[in-house]
Amino acid sequence: MNNKIYFTPGPSELYPTVPQHMQTALQEKIGSISHRSKQFQEVYAHAVAGLRQLLQLPANYEVLFLASATEVWERAIQNNVQQESFHLTNGSFSERFFETAQELGRKAQKYAAPFGEGFDVEKISVPGTAELVALIQNETSSGASIPVEDINRFREKAAPEALIYVDAVSSLPYPAFDFDKVDAVYFSVQKCFGLPAGLGVWLLNERCIAKAEALAASGQVIGSYHSLPSLLSKAKVNQTVETPNVLAIYLLGKVLEDMNSKGVAEIRKETKAKADHIYAYLEQSTAFAPAVKHPAHRSPTTIVANTTVPASEVNKQLAAFDMAIGSGYGKHKETQIRIANFPAHSPQQVEALVAKLNELFG
Amino acid sequence: MNNKIYFTPGPSELYPTVPQHMQTALQEKIGSISHRSKQFQEVYAHAVAGLRQLLQLPANYEVLFLASATEVWERAIQNNVQQESFHLTNGSFSERFFETAQELGRKAQKYAAPFGEGFDVEKISVPGTAELVALIQNETSSGASIPVEDINRFREKAAPEALIYVDAVSSLPYPAFDFDKVDAVYFSVQKCFGLPAGLGVWLLNERCIAKAEALAASGQVIGSYHSLPSLLSKAKVNQTVETPNVLAIYLLGKVLEDMNSKGVAEIRKETKAKADHIYAYLEQSTAFAPAVKHPAHRSPTTIVANTTVPASEVNKQLAAFDMAIGSGYGKHKETQIRIANFPAHSPQQVEALVAKLNELFG
Repeated sequence: MNNKIYFTPGPSELYPTVPQHMQTALQEKIGSISHRSKQFQEVYAHAVAGLRQLLQLPANYEVLFLASATEVWERAIQNNVQQESFHLTNGSFSERFFETAQELGRKAQKYAAPFGEGFDVEKISVPGTAELVALIQNETSSGASIPVEDINRFREKAAPEALIYVDAVSSLPYPAFDFDKVDAVYFSVQKCFGLPAGLGVWLLNERCIAKAEALAASGQVIGSYHSLPSLLSKAKVNQTVETPNVLAIYLLGKVLEDMNSKGVAEIRKETKAKADHIYAYLEQSTAFAPAVKHPAHRSPTTIVANTTVPASEVNKQLAAFDMAIGSGYGKHKETQIRIANFPAHSPQQVEALVAKLNELFG
Repeated sequence: MNNKIYFTPGPSELYPTVPQHMQTALQEKIGSISHRSKQFQEVYAHAVAGLRQLLQLPANYEVLFLASATEVWERAIQNNVQQESFHLTNGSFSERFFETAQELGRKAQKYAAPFGEGFDVEKISVPGTAELVALIQNETSSGASIPVEDINRFREKAAPEALIYVDAVSSLPYPAFDFDKVDAVYFSVQKCFGLPAGLGVWLLNERCIAKAEALAASGQVIGSYHSLPSLLSKAKVNQTVETPNVLAIYLLGKVLEDMNSKGVAEIRKETKAKADHIYAYLEQSTAFAPAVKHPAHRSPTTIVANTTVPASEVNKQLAAFDMAIGSGYGKHKETQIRIANFPAHSPQQVEALVAKLNELFG
């Protein structure tokens, strides 16, 4: 029996109801049902409806299930970029999206902020030739985030036909996006949705679809089974092209039910309160300090701190109390810690973590 | 509580030990561990070792985890074909691989046998320009299969540098392949491995890797995160590029442990005996008849029969006895039935199904 509480930035603690939903899934033999059956279509529709409700998603948005957010990067470039994309980068994941565009033969440009810094949006000008503008709302590697009001300013900065993509992999459902100001948002279920990994979710509007159709009509290869037209042809009948991770779609629908019962406003309020509590501790700690300087750019969901105690030592000491946090990302592995503050983490668990960090390290 | 036994051709009945392994996974919080942790590397290595043992995979083969077998089609074409592929087709899935090559801009040629027929390998000549030869060892849509000795003859039919790909999505571990005579084999876990869907497995040798590297060196775009070099860079350290379906990799390792305890020889023997039992019934049934005429081309794992009773009616009557079979594929939906004969289906379950079919339909 593993009693550890995982404050790792994803995979992370499962949403508390997941074990019970998994029991039900086993009893109902969800792992055995055909992905072409009516029962599966209901499972699929339930998950989509739950998402639409939680995120207050407008009717002009489609919901697509992919294998990972990493896959979304590739499909986005293939389907929505003929020649040129533009990326805001300030950490490993935003950089990876930029590199993906290059690997796929596109001209990719970037506006780079140092690792761990946010963006002064005022200073950024978007090339008029950029077909896709990649915004990193929450950089999981560095803990820097972009406030929604700053996201909303890119529509006027970019060319009218440019598609604005938002990486909310480790923040949704916390940010209350204005979906009219952006064109696509994507996330992974193993972060704030508290599910086992293996599903990426791509929300996108009719402008993204039209662009993919136009590229295909011009003779560009936009992929095979996961081209946007192919994905949409099945999504419209509540199915997927390939046999998908059925269990994950089922669990997502069930957890969304629980989240909607609680209400997104309450989830956001609680997330904010827990983040405030963690940051308040980090501000006065003698061992740790918030890695992101500007408070407005600090992520409420993936909280990163510089540490004077090596991250591995912090985790070693926490392990004795059945707690785990994330180490820093890449070359920051030992000099930073990352604390996930997801809806699965209760206020009591967060308080216990902060108290223990304070007791052990000051 | 759902007590139905699923003889559907995948997703299908879970391997009997899966519910217990899922309990252990929940207790050990496998859904929360980091995909960059040592614990995950052990889970990954365990699954790979189990596969190597069960399939007696030579050392020059690599094991890669993708999201689905459908994904393997796309990655195979991107990484192993510059201009031309050649496909044996005799059903919906082999046809889909052929179409994938076309969608990705390759010149694809095919040797097509009618739906539900096997191949007279003697008659097939492989174009000398084909870089990839796609063999459909087991066509899930039609129940036609290619005996391993016929598979083995393609090495001499194809150009020496051609890569021979084998679709064993719904048959492995039944066929005892000679891995020296082919270059890549792929399958899905929701078929004969009795797992929830959401993982495709790609076995490939060093010739496939060299070809991908050569194509990349020539300037061809071979994909991004799931290009072969990218996949291999992580596989070598028992990790994946993206956050994968961790739970599925864990469960695969556990089920492989169980299968190896039983032994692949016993699994194959039992599969053969169950298949013989089903076909013997179909041969003498007044309602059903084997859809594949030539006995040597009949799949032992996905058994298809023509039916005089509409498939939906067959299933409706079976449902009263907690049994489900597959309907026919595509336009054969009502005129054929498909019966999965996977390792998860016990001899007793198969006997009960055959007895019930006989009782209900003659």
